[in-house]
Amino acid sequence: MKALVYHGPGRKAWEDKPKPDIKVPTDAIVKILKTTICGTDLHIMKGDVPEVTDGRIIGHEGVGIVEETGGAVSSFKKGDHVLISCITSCGKCEYCKKGMYSHCIDGGWILGNLIDGTQAEYVRIPHADNSLYPIPGGADEEALVMLSDILPTGFECGVLNGQVKPGDTIAIVGAGPVGLAALLTAQFYSPAEIIMIDLDDNRLEVAKTFGATQLVNSGDGKAVEKVMTLTGGKGVDTAIEAVGVPSTFEICEAIVTAGGHIANIGVHGKSVTLHMETLWSKNISITTRLVDTVTTPMLFKTVQAQKLAPRKLITHHFRLDQVVEAYETFGNAAKEKALKVILTA
Amino acid sequence: MKALVYHGPGRKAWEDKPKPDIKVPTDAIVKILKTTICGTDLHIMKGDVPEVTDGRIIGHEGVGIVEETGGAVSSFKKGDHVLISCITSCGKCEYCKKGMYSHCIDGGWILGNLIDGTQAEYVRIPHADNSLYPIPGGADEEALVMLSDILPTGFECGVLNGQVKPGDTIAIVGAGPVGLAALLTAQFYSPAEIIMIDLDDNRLEVAKTFGATQLVNSGDGKAVEKVMTLTGGKGVDTAIEAVGVPSTFEICEAIVTAGGHIANIGVHGKSVTLHMETLWSKNISITTRLVDTVTTPMLFKTVQAQKLAPRKLITHHFRLDQVVEAYETFGNAAKEKALKVILTA
Amino acid sequence: MKALVYHGPGRKAWEDKPKPDIKVPTDAIVKILKTTICGTDLHIMKGDVPEVTDGRIIGHEGVGIVEETGGAVSSFKKGDHVLISCITSCGKCEYCKKGMYSHCIDGGWILGNLIDGTQAEYVRIPHADNSLYPIPGGADEEALVMLSDILPTGFECGVLNGQVKPGDTIAIVGAGPVGLAALLTAQFYSPAEIIMIDLDDNRLEVAKTFGATQLVNSGDGKAVEKVMTLTGGKGVDTAIEAVGVPSTFEICEAIVTAGGHIANIGVHGKSVTLHMETLWSKNISITTRLVDTVTTPMLFKTVQAQKLAPRKLITHHFRLDQVVEAYETFGNAAKEKALKVILTA
Amino acid sequence: MKALVYHGPGRKAWEDKPKPDIKVPTDAIVKILKTTICGTDLHIMKGDVPEVTDGRIIGHEGVGIVEETGGAVSSFKKGDHVLISCITSCGKCEYCKKGMYSHCIDGGWILGNLIDGTQAEYVRIPHADNSLYPIPGGADEEALVMLSDILPTGFECGVLNGQVKPGDTIAIVGAGPVGLAALLTAQFYSPAEIIMIDLDDNRLEVAKTFGATQLVNSGDGKAVEKVMTLTGGKGVDTAIEAVGVPSTFEICEAIVTAGGHIANIGVHGKSVTLHMETLWSKNISITTRLVDTVTTPMLFKTVQAQKLAPRKLITHHFRLDQVVEAYETFGNAAKEKALKVILTA
Repeated sequence: MKALVYHGPGRKAWEDKPKPDIKVPTDAIVKILKTTICGTDLHIMKGDVPEVTDGRIIGHEGVGIVEETGGAVSSFKKGDHVLISCITSCGKCEYCKKGMYSHCIDGGWILGNLIDGTQAEYVRIPHADNSLYPIPGGADEEALVMLSDILPTGFECGVLNGQVKPGDTIAIVGAGPVGLAALLTAQFYSPAEIIMIDLDDNRLEVAKTFGATQLVNSGDGKAVEKVMTLTGGKGVDTAIEAVGVPSTFEICEAIVTAGGHIANIGVHGKSVTLHMETLWSKNISITTRLVDTVTTPMLFKTVQAQKLAPRKLITHHFRLDQVVEAYETFGNAAKEKALKVILTA
Repeated sequence: MKALVYHGPGRKAWEDKPKPDIKVPTDAIVKILKTTICGTDLHIMKGDVPEVTDGRIIGHEGVGIVEETGGAVSSFKKGDHVLISCITSCGKCEYCKKGMYSHCIDGGWILGNLIDGTQAEYVRIPHADNSLYPIPGGADEEALVMLSDILPTGFECGVLNGQVKPGDTIAIVGAGPVGLAALLTAQFYSPAEIIMIDLDDNRLEVAKTFGATQLVNSGDGKAVEKVMTLTGGKGVDTAIEAVGVPSTFEICEAIVTAGGHIANIGVHGKSVTLHMETLWSKNISITTRLVDTVTTPMLFKTVQAQKLAPRKLITHHFRLDQVVEAYETFGNAAKEKALKVILTA
Repeated sequence: MKALVYHGPGRKAWEDKPKPDIKVPTDAIVKILKTTICGTDLHIMKGDVPEVTDGRIIGHEGVGIVEETGGAVSSFKKGDHVLISCITSCGKCEYCKKGMYSHCIDGGWILGNLIDGTQAEYVRIPHADNSLYPIPGGADEEALVMLSDILPTGFECGVLNGQVKPGDTIAIVGAGPVGLAALLTAQFYSPAEIIMIDLDDNRLEVAKTFGATQLVNSGDGKAVEKVMTLTGGKGVDTAIEAVGVPSTFEICEAIVTAGGHIANIGVHGKSVTLHMETLWSKNISITTRLVDTVTTPMLFKTVQAQKLAPRKLITHHFRLDQVVEAYETFGNAAKEKALKVILTA
Repeated sequence: MKALVYHGPGRKAWEDKPKPDIKVPTDAIVKILKTTICGTDLHIMKGDVPEVTDGRIIGHEGVGIVEETGGAVSSFKKGDHVLISCITSCGKCEYCKKGMYSHCIDGGWILGNLIDGTQAEYVRIPHADNSLYPIPGGADEEALVMLSDILPTGFECGVLNGQVKPGDTIAIVGAGPVGLAALLTAQFYSPAEIIMIDLDDNRLEVAKTFGATQLVNSGDGKAVEKVMTLTGGKGVDTAIEAVGVPSTFEICEAIVTAGGHIANIGVHGKSVTLHMETLWSKNISITTRLVDTVTTPMLFKTVQAQKLAPRKLITHHFRLDQVVEAYETFGNAAKEKALKVILTA
């Protein structure tokens, strides 16, 4: 089969690889129908994720058709259309039993990382019963690709951990795909105000069409002052960090109100300065999370009921064999006005 | 009357001051029976709390007898024995309605800070109906002094925010009075292991008699390694910070397990380094809190039912007019093996 | 002044009464601008609420202008526009401190019940600081009358107690004003399906315009079968009872799914049969509640942010001196297609 | 092998049965070391559980040694000592993913009910990875038999659903084994008062040694009055029903305080009368639950830490081949002063 293969920092190729086989009875082989590229994949390509080694097939999102199942797979059979979760879950370890699939002792984020991933014609999915979700007939499969990673990530790490409530004033720092996923899913809980903060006016305008009530361009270094003005000096009930660098985390620290929440989504490569000298008495919570995808069934229901429109996140389409070109586009997201790209096999 | 008065950094005196009067109808005047000294009072005396100005009477803990009440006080009358909360609460602002008395817009921590306090023969208590608690006849009033501040602080900021559960493994960094208060109240929830971390072997031994199951002296800089060994490399479900300096906060960051909680109690004067480069994916929560004393009624019930023994925290007794001497003892806590001192009028 | 006075079952009159005075320093006198009639008022008029005695002024909802305040009222002054909560709250008793204002030991539902109410030119509001809410300039005061009782009732007793979540399937039994209030506020949490059950097709059609996704007329005694068909045999995650008779409660028992919730809003005059022989193993919760109005500040914010449109509930307008005529209309709600009537002074 | 076989109401025998085999790859065969008899088994023997058919091996509790595992079992191997959960859980269905194992679509309570059970020399355990728990070396295996059913049942259905908190006043109606299991595990949360209600003075005395603070013999029909006297007319924060008949449920309805909880554990065969005419306004919750055994890992930790002493529940010992005699003793529990019997292979 053909697959996108990582060959060390800056080097990748769409090339021949052996079609995957069932290795253990809980595996399934899935023929990819549609997949996408994640911001994390860009980091991998730069060499920022040293666990990913030369020869690895990249990608952890997608929908497909079950091609083959191991003897212990009971929920799926050949021909079933399935959503692939970015998180592999055994369903039986200490962490899975707590719904913390991200820390599954025989899973977690391994696809396109420690094992071969979804930017390929076929992929092996370990613990298929717990790591795949059935797609009902008539569903919009392209839209569902957004449920592999980005929507549960924005929802779990940002919205649920941020405890967004009706009437709240919230801020989301970072209007990239995951920040926008938080924006879409925050609206499940009817906050009064959603302040979107980013450097890119184009992305802010997109955020407005997605439901943001206030836009703050932080390019002038005055995001904190602007948010405090918008909130009458009070700050926000929830600040969602969706970038992953110290300066955006510090914006969250400065704008969270007493009794509020900072919910981190961003993947951080460096430590940040935590201003405990002011925060110690502010009765706040700060949360971190690698997405568990434990809310995937709930998100499915909201999509089916048209309470959530994942398609809004899709800006570009390519054939799967154009994946290298798709990386170009996605890697120049600001210039290309790209959010998520869909690769169709 | 006589009172302990702050006269700038390093200067205090037991001297004459006018007896307080009712200023607004929600005030009460309380004759102090017993009071104590808080670690915060030592900070005030050093000049670390600039809000406290020359001439201020210090102290925010105590029990007493109601001497006089304003026209709008309905829950108390002259002669009632009362516990004084360290937090003044109006009961009607946005924050009080949420149980966040610490941020009351006409209260919060003001006693012995922004208004005169309890290390005196009499004290004026604003919003008396919400800031005093009736003491039932026959109660151990000396023990109840521990409910003014230290026990709700350890319980709310450490134990409740830390979400201690039956069977958990927890660590408390700092075996001073407030860390020990967390230790006592953590046992309400039956954790399996309570690891106490401190520099002082004497305090650690005290912790053992209070219910700690493991002791770690962090003087050799190896607290993290020791905790990881004690927990089979897993870390703790809850790490309670009860010191307030960067190094102890960083111990908490290093020992918290995936899915765990860091609950800060310490009063911090400096920022800390938050290792988001490792914590971003660990599904943890970090909480801060100025005590609300919203659990005071619950703590009362546990004391009455002998589920909590506040007396254990009391090591020294003085007459109220010996308060300067009591500061000496409390200020040399390690040498004097002092936890809490009781000053009796 | 003029007021609507109850004179025993079936007898009421718009007649002269003395204008109320401040009795205790926490009182306020409010000049009524707009008020309304509650289903409970109809029960009172029939003699179903024996606590209400001859001579009582009825009514527990409304907005007005502060006319006078007692010496201990600090949050309001003459001239302030205010929302009157149906629940009086002292803010300092055991129950108020837990947010259970409905059981306030010096309050609860007393307006138009144990003390004179709001269907009058003036009303005395005890514990004014905790029982009134400020109306910001420019707000739609008529819409806010719906926040005195009906919206917090539907929201707290039905939606919050029913734990409505994104993607859920819920049913509301009873499409009267309070059932419709639950319908409006349930949408704060983005359920996938809202099945509305009633005997009156007109009310069901109204429910559809308010956001119900499925309508079930229970007049043929087949509500349970219909709900089970609509839910693929599974039943509903939350069943909200908004009628108050045994048969509607039993519908809820029959349609709740394993792990689901029955949230009672209805005022019941008789016991109901609880089918523990089937429910004991279904992992359900059943909740009851007299509205606390603890969510009034949250509801205010959702109205200001246009996430909630209380005006939808208003169908008829009268002058305050036409209150007897308004009772006629409201008492024939089905025929008159009446939901809530507004009485304007 | 030998096993206890049900042959219709009133008829059972210790007789030869074929040793069970692995049927599907997720099965394990366990050699029983110790098992026990449940109150439910007595009901089965009377014919009260029609799902149980002639020829069924009874029993759903026990510890044993893994004899054989199917190809998809990864957490256990031959020779491992294991605790058998009374609830079989597939770990991958909608309910298991929510921690509601009791409603597992390929499990739930099936052992000794729909499939052969544990009162036998060997038992087949479906979904072994999720339905067995490893026993650490050196553990008290006999004590752990109490974790198969009775302790998680008392804890989950009674204590957790009843939301027992430090300082609470609770009542447990029924001092049989499951009521006593609730009594033991309620103490994890440090309630102030635990009122035990039963008809049998012997069991009440046992309850006292287990930690009950007040005893009420309900034989005179005055349990409600006695509880109201003990609680100063206020009632209890949590009433746990551990019998399963209408009269005991109605005691709970009568003694629960405003804002309190009724947590049902009892297996009910009839409907009960729910006094909504008084309860509608009392802000209470009523919960039902078939045990999920989702807390088994937590209970393991509390036993290992000696926060829970399951041995207290064991009153009698028999050899496994004396099981018929053991049924005699357990069936005359009051006369024999029996709580739980242990059958050792």
